[in-house]
Amino acid sequence: MPEKKKLAIIVESGTLDKLYCAFILGSAATSMGWEAHFYFTFWGLQAIVKGAMEKAVLPGDYKHMETQMRERLKQMKYPTPYDMLKRMKSSGLLKIYACTPTMEMFGIKREDLIPEVDELAGAATFLNIAAGADVTLFI
Amino acid sequence: MPEKKKLAIIVESGTLDKLYCAFILGSAATSMGWEAHFYFTFWGLQAIVKGAMEKAVLPGDYKHMETQMRERLKQMKYPTPYDMLKRMKSSGLLKIYACTPTMEMFGIKREDLIPEVDELAGAATFLNIAAGADVTLFI
Amino acid sequence: MPEKKKLAIIVESGTLDKLYCAFILGSAATSMGWEAHFYFTFWGLQAIVKGAMEKAVLPGDYKHMETQMRERLKQMKYPTPYDMLKRMKSSGLLKIYACTPTMEMFGIKREDLIPEVDELAGAATFLNIAAGADVTLFI
Repeated sequence: MPEKKKLAIIVESGTLDKLYCAFILGSAATSMGWEAHFYFTFWGLQAIVKGAMEKAVLPGDYKHMETQMRERLKQMKYPTPYDMLKRMKSSGLLKIYACTPTMEMFGIKREDLIPEVDELAGAATFLNIAAGADVTLFI
Repeated sequence: MPEKKKLAIIVESGTLDKLYCAFILGSAATSMGWEAHFYFTFWGLQAIVKGAMEKAVLPGDYKHMETQMRERLKQMKYPTPYDMLKRMKSSGLLKIYACTPTMEMFGIKREDLIPEVDELAGAATFLNIAAGADVTLFI
Repeated sequence: MPEKKKLAIIVESGTLDKLYCAFILGSAATSMGWEAHFYFTFWGLQAIVKGAMEKAVLPGDYKHMETQMRERLKQMKYPTPYDMLKRMKSSGLLKIYACTPTMEMFGIKREDLIPEVDELAGAATFLNIAAGADVTLFI
């Protein structure tokens, strides 16, 4: 059996637009049968603290577009970022890593994070995964 | 004949600095005979709505540098982002994709976009292109 | 002897969080014996002007977290971004490129930059390096 294609994303951002970008790409990947490896760091890591993703907002520069975007998403019955993450997870193809240096830097503990996290890992672990990936992105 | 090298860029940002980054890289690529594949999404997609690229500004955090930068670009007779895009397009090596989920999210129609767009596409289409690229970036 | 793995990063951002991201990845890479190629452009280039990196701050949207983060870094005796850069440099595995179009755009001269810069280069040079890299990121 041929090896699965791999998407590796470093999710550094925690804003609504960037989370959607990462998760739309991840959903496309897993729906094609690719593995998706997501490494959450900095503001991205803060977005996978329990209860935080639901509060993600647009960056300050795009604040004026938020109401329109949210209404549109509602009309479209578009899934929330966390719904998308859980749907990807249920495919068995998504692996979620939490960045240990960021956790230390912001005093975040394992039990503070959403239960979908698979592994706490440093940058070296993720670089080795990325080196074997077909597409690697920093979002 | 050997296959051409490929640059694949997801243009998520719509600010002047990031558009220049994407287009300077794209121009370097096409001038070396590489193919350049640009996938415009989110704020990047909004920048390829007709008339929008001409109004691109620096991000809020760098607003104070905008006058200096614009004057300098004028002195240098530096091309505008849209001029750079059209120049790349005329090489026959640039292919422009517009992100369909973003179009739906913001109610943007095909006829709203600049005529240089080649294809409306979802994330899966672009991931397959990126998987065959030599360099892939998320800007 | 097998060729070394290569990490190629375009550092476009100059904020404290993104510099740490780039340098933590670079440090992980060089500590595994990989080559790290850093191409500083735009705000990233401005961060390698002498004396500038010491003044790097968080982006406006995260300003409210800066005091907490700095205190935490101090408690952890975490190295500063410039310390990390110098440590990577001393490994002999880090090569630093300064983006010539940005230098021209902002009137920055070679002597304005930190002495660790190895080469002034255009985008084409860096794309060729990235095309041979195992992991390429735009930060």
